[in-house]
Amino acid sequence: MAKQKKQPRPKAETPKGFRDYFGAEVTQRTEMLRTIAGVYHRYGFEALETSAVETVEALGKFLPDVDRPNDGVFAWREDEDDGKGDWLALRYDLTAPLARVYAQYRNDLPTPYRRYAMGPVWRNEKPGPGRYRQFYQCDADTVGAASMAADAEICAMLADTLEEVGIPRGDYLIRINNRKVLNGVLEAMGLEDAEQHDAVLRTIDKFDKVGEDGVRALLGKGRLDASGAYIDGVGLSEAQADPVVAFLTSRGADSAATLANLRAAVGSSAMGAEGIDELEQIAGLLDAQGYGPDRIVIDPSVVRGLGYYTGPVYEAELTFDIFDDKGRKRQFGSVAGGGRYDDLVKRFTGQAVPATGVSIGVDRLLAALREKGRIKAVTHGPVVVTVMDRDRMADYQAMVAELRNAGLRAEVYLGNPKNFGNQLKYADRRHSPVAVIEGGDEKARGVVQVKDLILGAQIAESATLEEWKERPSQFEVPRGHLVAKVREILASHGIGQD
Amino acid sequence: MAKQKKQPRPKAETPKGFRDYFGAEVTQRTEMLRTIAGVYHRYGFEALETSAVETVEALGKFLPDVDRPNDGVFAWREDEDDGKGDWLALRYDLTAPLARVYAQYRNDLPTPYRRYAMGPVWRNEKPGPGRYRQFYQCDADTVGAASMAADAEICAMLADTLEEVGIPRGDYLIRINNRKVLNGVLEAMGLEDAEQHDAVLRTIDKFDKVGEDGVRALLGKGRLDASGAYIDGVGLSEAQADPVVAFLTSRGADSAATLANLRAAVGSSAMGAEGIDELEQIAGLLDAQGYGPDRIVIDPSVVRGLGYYTGPVYEAELTFDIFDDKGRKRQFGSVAGGGRYDDLVKRFTGQAVPATGVSIGVDRLLAALREKGRIKAVTHGPVVVTVMDRDRMADYQAMVAELRNAGLRAEVYLGNPKNFGNQLKYADRRHSPVAVIEGGDEKARGVVQVKDLILGAQIAESATLEEWKERPSQFEVPRGHLVAKVREILASHGIGQD
Repeated sequence: MAKQKKQPRPKAETPKGFRDYFGAEVTQRTEMLRTIAGVYHRYGFEALETSAVETVEALGKFLPDVDRPNDGVFAWREDEDDGKGDWLALRYDLTAPLARVYAQYRNDLPTPYRRYAMGPVWRNEKPGPGRYRQFYQCDADTVGAASMAADAEICAMLADTLEEVGIPRGDYLIRINNRKVLNGVLEAMGLEDAEQHDAVLRTIDKFDKVGEDGVRALLGKGRLDASGAYIDGVGLSEAQADPVVAFLTSRGADSAATLANLRAAVGSSAMGAEGIDELEQIAGLLDAQGYGPDRIVIDPSVVRGLGYYTGPVYEAELTFDIFDDKGRKRQFGSVAGGGRYDDLVKRFTGQAVPATGVSIGVDRLLAALREKGRIKAVTHGPVVVTVMDRDRMADYQAMVAELRNAGLRAEVYLGNPKNFGNQLKYADRRHSPVAVIEGGDEKARGVVQVKDLILGAQIAESATLEEWKERPSQFEVPRGHLVAKVREILASHGIGQD
Repeated sequence: MAKQKKQPRPKAETPKGFRDYFGAEVTQRTEMLRTIAGVYHRYGFEALETSAVETVEALGKFLPDVDRPNDGVFAWREDEDDGKGDWLALRYDLTAPLARVYAQYRNDLPTPYRRYAMGPVWRNEKPGPGRYRQFYQCDADTVGAASMAADAEICAMLADTLEEVGIPRGDYLIRINNRKVLNGVLEAMGLEDAEQHDAVLRTIDKFDKVGEDGVRALLGKGRLDASGAYIDGVGLSEAQADPVVAFLTSRGADSAATLANLRAAVGSSAMGAEGIDELEQIAGLLDAQGYGPDRIVIDPSVVRGLGYYTGPVYEAELTFDIFDDKGRKRQFGSVAGGGRYDDLVKRFTGQAVPATGVSIGVDRLLAALREKGRIKAVTHGPVVVTVMDRDRMADYQAMVAELRNAGLRAEVYLGNPKNFGNQLKYADRRHSPVAVIEGGDEKARGVVQVKDLILGAQIAESATLEEWKERPSQFEVPRGHLVAKVREILASHGIGQD
């Protein structure tokens, strides 16, 4: 310790792009994860928890929107005596570890293997407002099932999950597309240049933002964006752009209409036809189970950036409006997405293993529920037993023990008890609903003072003197009635036990 | 992807010292964390979740048993454009981040601040059998309370927690000591050499293993250990060693006796006397709340390795016997520990902030409960609806939907349905209690076959042909009775609903 005194004091700060979560932020997320796990479990999915750390080799280069290997991850070289340790990294999603696990344990795991996983992932990206370098994901995947029934099941489960966490039907929509259809369209166009191919994909992904005309411009010569900057186009001719636009605008009144439009858009492409057949199977299964277009639709404008999808892709978006910081109305947007990726396990084993799965952005979903007022922002703190006489700490501890044994959340004030005002300030900062007071006089008379802090705050804010007199917020009760009185006050404010 | 084909396949392995957790391993831990959080919450503690990543500067050099700075942590230098980014590291415990958080937000947090935290921590240490580099901790700390009532509260809460997760009274013991007493003893000995001081502490920590004679030898000339190696001693004279041994063996029949013995051991040391006063206060508070010596005792042999403790230290050990791999009986040992550390926040702010807290080793506690058979090792899988006719997938999906809506865990077989034997093997590997079968014939007759797989396995294992005939394990029921029949079978095996 002596040496440290010479050093400057460390800064008490989270690293850039990381944050801390307090109280209800933590417990509400825990509760949501529990609800989601319950639905996943009911669907037969098994929990899996891999470690946060993987070898860079096992993680691979599948991080979306990143070109250089290992870019975008937090990585370090393991110290070994010969200085040639493995490169390790924090996982950037829950899918890459799943592929590793399935390859590693494939002889012991059931096939198909349905698994769910929840936990933080890390991205070494430039942080921005509301954009953190550690965030939660909550995934469900089925590995080893080629059947479209696996994709349909995940979409149905996603709908059930959203409703169970508190997003009512009508406030969300799950949109399904298929990579093969898109590739079929590009095949039909005769687009062979890989760079142009990728540029078209990126353009399609902007359809939601720029609309049909915008996409047409971006596929051609380019356009001015909202900021006035000129965005170069892909350089296709009008005729070449036509099938892409036809594809994007092929969503019809129902699945049958959409599928018919798509068949026209892919022309004679065999891959495109295969993709449409797959969508038709998924639509049929979902229809049969009663998941209609109010919950799940086929929508060709869904692309999903991730390079590794090979078949159906799906996305859940919340359809209600919210208002941003500047008061502008906008849609909340995507909270979950996924798709089929048949090649991830192959990296390890050489054998293609069909797989499909979804990832829910738990933090975004929580934000949405808070935005809609479906999760209470303020939660109440514990009952605070104040300390009037520091030598009688055992008496106060006995009171909190009584309250806790009755299932009530309670604590004794543990700071310096000298200044009573500080104790009430503390109770206030804790959002305590009730404070309990027992001075020497009360002790001698066998009573306690029970203070209703919520009512007290209401009265302090608005009541007239008359009202104040009529509605006392502090009650003297016999010591033996402590628990009953506290319970009565909590009930009067609709606060449940524990 | 083209480039990757030329590279060798990545190994599907966890990094050394890390592991994966499957199914019940995950859900049982989640359940235990939930139970513990419930107790902590009832005591008024608030959840806090910090990020896994901290700056190395903020983490400091407090990792136990490690001498070099940053040794023992996973650390890397953040890439910044100028190549001079911060050093970041994975947290090695939950206490160092708490000190950082309290220093950072001290003006907004209530004081005292009671917080709990649960999550993985990482140690860059040599892995060994059962020793992993990522493991869970579950901490509760009170920051800003100098009162011994804070320490007493944490010990009482620890006892409640152990009982609530399933360790009955009598199977655990919480032992309390005080660093000041120990330092008082060393002061009374006149030990001024810092190295000798530390050597004495390390020796005391071995008391549980080597006993009184062993400690006496190690304080003096040294001794042969069990493996035959000679361990050098600290080099104290008999007379110098006497107070240490007196201290270690001062546990009496009750707290009063122990405290009297300790007073003798510390002689005239003012620090020692202060430590004993503190222990007396803790003992008094716990007595008043009914936490007797069957649950919590003062035990001078508790040292706790961590350098940063400044006052009371406490440890919970499980007292029942278990058998190790070689069939030898041993005690399960410590599952939680903590103490008072008044200097951790000071690193950041320059002001000493009193703090005390406990950390529960969740994985060890789970292992103990499994060892004692208090957590079921095998849990049952979902009901499996088999696929007899792949064109009727929608029918099978409808069945699982019905079962799930009735609160039962169910899934449809999603692999290649061609080989029916594979479907039953799958159900077996999933530990499914029930399989449902509906072929074309059943469909035509409006019935389903419901197969009791648990009974089937029992019969296959032991029944005679007669019994086999008398106790059919497969039942044909009308399609409309599916849910009722499945529920009946589950109930017959004592399997609850979801």
